[in-house]
Amino acid sequence: MNESVNVAVIGAGRIGRLHAAHLAHRIEGARLTAISDVRLEAARECAEQLNIPEVFQDHRKILDDPQVQAVVICSSTDTHASLIAEAAAAGKHIFCEKPIALDLKRIDDALAAVEAAGVKLQVGFNRRFDANFSRMREVIREGQLGDLHILRITSRDPAPPPIEYIKVSGGIFLDMMIHDFDMARYLVGDEVEKVFAVGAVRIDPEIGKAGDIDTAVVTLQFANGCLATIDNSRRAVYGYDQRVEAFGSEGMINAENETPTRLRLSTSEAAREDLPLYFFVERYTESYLTEMRAFLDCIRQDTEPPVTGVDARVPVVMGKAARLSFEQNRPVAVAEIK
Amino acid sequence: MNESVNVAVIGAGRIGRLHAAHLAHRIEGARLTAISDVRLEAARECAEQLNIPEVFQDHRKILDDPQVQAVVICSSTDTHASLIAEAAAAGKHIFCEKPIALDLKRIDDALAAVEAAGVKLQVGFNRRFDANFSRMREVIREGQLGDLHILRITSRDPAPPPIEYIKVSGGIFLDMMIHDFDMARYLVGDEVEKVFAVGAVRIDPEIGKAGDIDTAVVTLQFANGCLATIDNSRRAVYGYDQRVEAFGSEGMINAENETPTRLRLSTSEAAREDLPLYFFVERYTESYLTEMRAFLDCIRQDTEPPVTGVDARVPVVMGKAARLSFEQNRPVAVAEIK
Amino acid sequence: MNESVNVAVIGAGRIGRLHAAHLAHRIEGARLTAISDVRLEAARECAEQLNIPEVFQDHRKILDDPQVQAVVICSSTDTHASLIAEAAAAGKHIFCEKPIALDLKRIDDALAAVEAAGVKLQVGFNRRFDANFSRMREVIREGQLGDLHILRITSRDPAPPPIEYIKVSGGIFLDMMIHDFDMARYLVGDEVEKVFAVGAVRIDPEIGKAGDIDTAVVTLQFANGCLATIDNSRRAVYGYDQRVEAFGSEGMINAENETPTRLRLSTSEAAREDLPLYFFVERYTESYLTEMRAFLDCIRQDTEPPVTGVDARVPVVMGKAARLSFEQNRPVAVAEIK
Amino acid sequence: MNESVNVAVIGAGRIGRLHAAHLAHRIEGARLTAISDVRLEAARECAEQLNIPEVFQDHRKILDDPQVQAVVICSSTDTHASLIAEAAAAGKHIFCEKPIALDLKRIDDALAAVEAAGVKLQVGFNRRFDANFSRMREVIREGQLGDLHILRITSRDPAPPPIEYIKVSGGIFLDMMIHDFDMARYLVGDEVEKVFAVGAVRIDPEIGKAGDIDTAVVTLQFANGCLATIDNSRRAVYGYDQRVEAFGSEGMINAENETPTRLRLSTSEAAREDLPLYFFVERYTESYLTEMRAFLDCIRQDTEPPVTGVDARVPVVMGKAARLSFEQNRPVAVAEIK
Repeated sequence: MNESVNVAVIGAGRIGRLHAAHLAHRIEGARLTAISDVRLEAARECAEQLNIPEVFQDHRKILDDPQVQAVVICSSTDTHASLIAEAAAAGKHIFCEKPIALDLKRIDDALAAVEAAGVKLQVGFNRRFDANFSRMREVIREGQLGDLHILRITSRDPAPPPIEYIKVSGGIFLDMMIHDFDMARYLVGDEVEKVFAVGAVRIDPEIGKAGDIDTAVVTLQFANGCLATIDNSRRAVYGYDQRVEAFGSEGMINAENETPTRLRLSTSEAAREDLPLYFFVERYTESYLTEMRAFLDCIRQDTEPPVTGVDARVPVVMGKAARLSFEQNRPVAVAEIK
Repeated sequence: MNESVNVAVIGAGRIGRLHAAHLAHRIEGARLTAISDVRLEAARECAEQLNIPEVFQDHRKILDDPQVQAVVICSSTDTHASLIAEAAAAGKHIFCEKPIALDLKRIDDALAAVEAAGVKLQVGFNRRFDANFSRMREVIREGQLGDLHILRITSRDPAPPPIEYIKVSGGIFLDMMIHDFDMARYLVGDEVEKVFAVGAVRIDPEIGKAGDIDTAVVTLQFANGCLATIDNSRRAVYGYDQRVEAFGSEGMINAENETPTRLRLSTSEAAREDLPLYFFVERYTESYLTEMRAFLDCIRQDTEPPVTGVDARVPVVMGKAARLSFEQNRPVAVAEIK
Repeated sequence: MNESVNVAVIGAGRIGRLHAAHLAHRIEGARLTAISDVRLEAARECAEQLNIPEVFQDHRKILDDPQVQAVVICSSTDTHASLIAEAAAAGKHIFCEKPIALDLKRIDDALAAVEAAGVKLQVGFNRRFDANFSRMREVIREGQLGDLHILRITSRDPAPPPIEYIKVSGGIFLDMMIHDFDMARYLVGDEVEKVFAVGAVRIDPEIGKAGDIDTAVVTLQFANGCLATIDNSRRAVYGYDQRVEAFGSEGMINAENETPTRLRLSTSEAAREDLPLYFFVERYTESYLTEMRAFLDCIRQDTEPPVTGVDARVPVVMGKAARLSFEQNRPVAVAEIK
Repeated sequence: MNESVNVAVIGAGRIGRLHAAHLAHRIEGARLTAISDVRLEAARECAEQLNIPEVFQDHRKILDDPQVQAVVICSSTDTHASLIAEAAAAGKHIFCEKPIALDLKRIDDALAAVEAAGVKLQVGFNRRFDANFSRMREVIREGQLGDLHILRITSRDPAPPPIEYIKVSGGIFLDMMIHDFDMARYLVGDEVEKVFAVGAVRIDPEIGKAGDIDTAVVTLQFANGCLATIDNSRRAVYGYDQRVEAFGSEGMINAENETPTRLRLSTSEAAREDLPLYFFVERYTESYLTEMRAFLDCIRQDTEPPVTGVDARVPVVMGKAARLSFEQNRPVAVAEIK
């Protein structure tokens, strides 16, 4: 039953190496056959560490290999859409890191190519696969909260990314809050109609000079009547803050932060506990494993991927709506974004 | 030093009886001399229980008594403004339950009367005196959080008030969220410039028929750049939910709910803990005591009351701005409200 | 129904003043008519603060007053037994602080006097009336834990008492752990058969010179098979540590410490929470009120007091067994103590 | 630097397969070359899953292979001592699951063989490598608690082992509490002088018929004056309960249980949280990885293993002392056990 799937990784940066390591050692039923990177040296180093049989600079070598059944796209964001189209044309199943693109036309073209080729596409909204949030969704689906009235998401990074990244990332609503938009849709199980965003530069004026903000609060109105707030900060000095709360007619569920230990130290000063796990690699390791296992399962069992093309597209639209709302200081209908 | 202050209570409803009981037994330096209520029977019953020397139907008997130094106004909201003016004219110091009025002109007239008479006026924003929130404010004032970036207030009642109350209360923004507007100002230590409100009827259609909503989410923008969200629900099935979180450049502080015990019961099903204290009487008893002690202190020491006339007025303005924002689906500047 | 009971307090030390203040202001159905103290000045000061009508140096004035229905004995421990006998002979109901005496013959004589007079006697094991522990007992009684297998009590003071007190107190097993012996019996609902005690002087050598220890760990074996451990320290730098855990065939229940607030402060260093309420006055105020209300209820309703003469005697026996076990380094049967 | 170490696993039962999987995939610098089991089929199945090059029924094939540098002994307890001696004679470094033997003579012979051969021996007290307990030890070592006064260990299994196992395991003090004896020594950093044990059959009479007990409470007195209690139960219905608390002159540290998520669900009934991770595989996975990495590190760097032969022997002595104490109902000096 658990026939192995031959997988290759495109892009040997941080997230590419992470997926490669998982595919090499921790995902049953995957055979990692190749890795490519435009910086050949990066691919080679990774291949040596993980005993990956083949290494390339040119991803087309991977797409031309008939034995490769699936590719994991971890290259820079601006290459995602065209790589998806190429891989789909080559008949490969595709796992792609988010976002597909910042431009909706490019996303739509990529999704059309996937559709035409009849291959699987799963996008890397890994937080859905975290034990806390997937269980929270089950609780909601099972009706334990009754009708959902209010959703609150707090999502704060321990430190801002480099300014160079911010300049090309699309800004806080597309590089950071996009995860929270996805989480909101995932948990509420419905679509957002209106977005209202406020924000400010509070942490680093350089972020402002790059045209972005570092602190943002967004209100979402869902079609089903649920109201949601998301707050983002690019720097929480106490670490990666990833909390969600869902409130409904029959109850509330909260996900608190995960910590390295469950120790509590009481001295004459205070009772002290651990800060949250530092950042996404520490916090979400298990979710990266689970999402990749889910991807392979949907290939082997020929089922719908748990994160679809629509799931990839809508948060980008929401991010654009949030940006427009922030710029124009007014609530923006998601339908306004074309 | 602690010379006694002669105090009389006007209004023997639930909150009047609560303040009377505190003044009778638990506030050092207070002498409760009289109570009045338009329903004489209510005043009489309370007086008997607490051994209050004098009982009246007409509050003017209290104001005419030269021995009474201070009055505690707990009558229905529509009488507050005129009672303040009368009490001020009679030279009495005044503690008044919130709000002074729903009409700004009436508030301003009452405050002018207080000003003219040179008496003290303290308004009953009792939550400021809760140990959690007063300590939180100290932490903020001491700079332990650095610059404040985000404030989050969750305030949910265990059950909606009677529909009859909702019809005259001014609606959720003025009867319920007004406490949170005060809390936000109190903690941030600054004024709000813009308000954006969304809301819905999710709990009881009768509330909608009465022209109100039962679920609301509001975004505040402070002059100092702090962003705040407040969410209100008129019914949290798990009890009175009163949580606040302040996030700044140097840290975060959270106030969780108070519970009847610290017990944890672990069975084969789950680990279970207490729900929050049921409602404001259980949750805020100590804060009612502390606010009244503070009122008496400011009389005896001739100092500024800790909740001033401005503190009474501004949250009403904010509530009106929130209502307007909700109705017009746009951010409203507080300055728009005249 | 709630006819008032006339009560007088004997002893105006710390605990006497605490009970007097409660009786004066916070216990419905009590009328505090008098207070006495061998140091007249102490009684007088207290009476003035609380408006107590009569003040005496000699407690016999209280016992001779036919209007006094009940006395609250808060004098020094060595006077408890004889005061109980006197008060019983005078037909007064008696609330007495623990212990009745350190000598079993004296306890038995006092209990016999109470028996002969047919008055009520309640002893001040106040912790039984704490919301955490009374609820814990209910959970056990209701069978939610099934059969009780293991009980763990941690009881640590924030600072040692004066050496002068330790010299006459009977030592740690009788002045401190006696509360835990009572708690163990109260929760388990059964009697202890064997006691094993170890201990040491770890905090202050002066305590050792006074013939006592400051750190102790005791194992109890109940007749019904339940095993219990108690640990005591005379100094926990983080404050008054009062935790209990009961473990049975169907579950476990834990009582954690109560704290001044529910705040949590997260900085780059750690997440910090409050230390426990500092000492017994802060921690157990409500339990002192509840025990006194229960005492008055059992007078008015002519029911058995919730803490009986047997409850007063057995923990003293257990304390003596623990001391003997510690001295002889062997398990001691409670039946050995005559 | 990280030259690979060739390792073989002896015994393909549950714990053998767990170590094999870790060595195959998750331990850098290990090359898993072979596995053996007296049930060849078990070894073969494991080898197939993990791509282990060689499979044997006879462990001597492993010991005869000059390329094997280290063995991981996971066979049944009664074979540990002789396998250690054989492996040492063959010049292999040894990781052995605990205990080496229930008989002290056999342990001493095995340790002598290791000594004579000059190979490394590390014993599988995996809990030392748990993030909670290793951090707790650091806190103690750094002096943050001052002098250690009291240590409390709670260790309860979710379900009893099969009766067949209990008959040969040496009983609760040697098959279960042995981990806690090790933990106590590890944390206190000193040796125990006296042991006092009480216990009972409360869960299953069959356990009693097998000559064992299922509930035990033990008091330890350390040479340095620290007092410790350990409580064990073979069945906690709420799951694997692994808590430790250390109390000293300057503070206290507690390790609470780890849980699958940090969710909290509040309904009208209660606030519910997760039960502890179910059993040792779920709870201690990371510690098994860390201990194996430590074993390989001490081979590569030629350092002392973090769990030595003495660490393997002393808890067996303590277990025997506890059993004797339980049988004779008296404190037993560890020195009595020869």
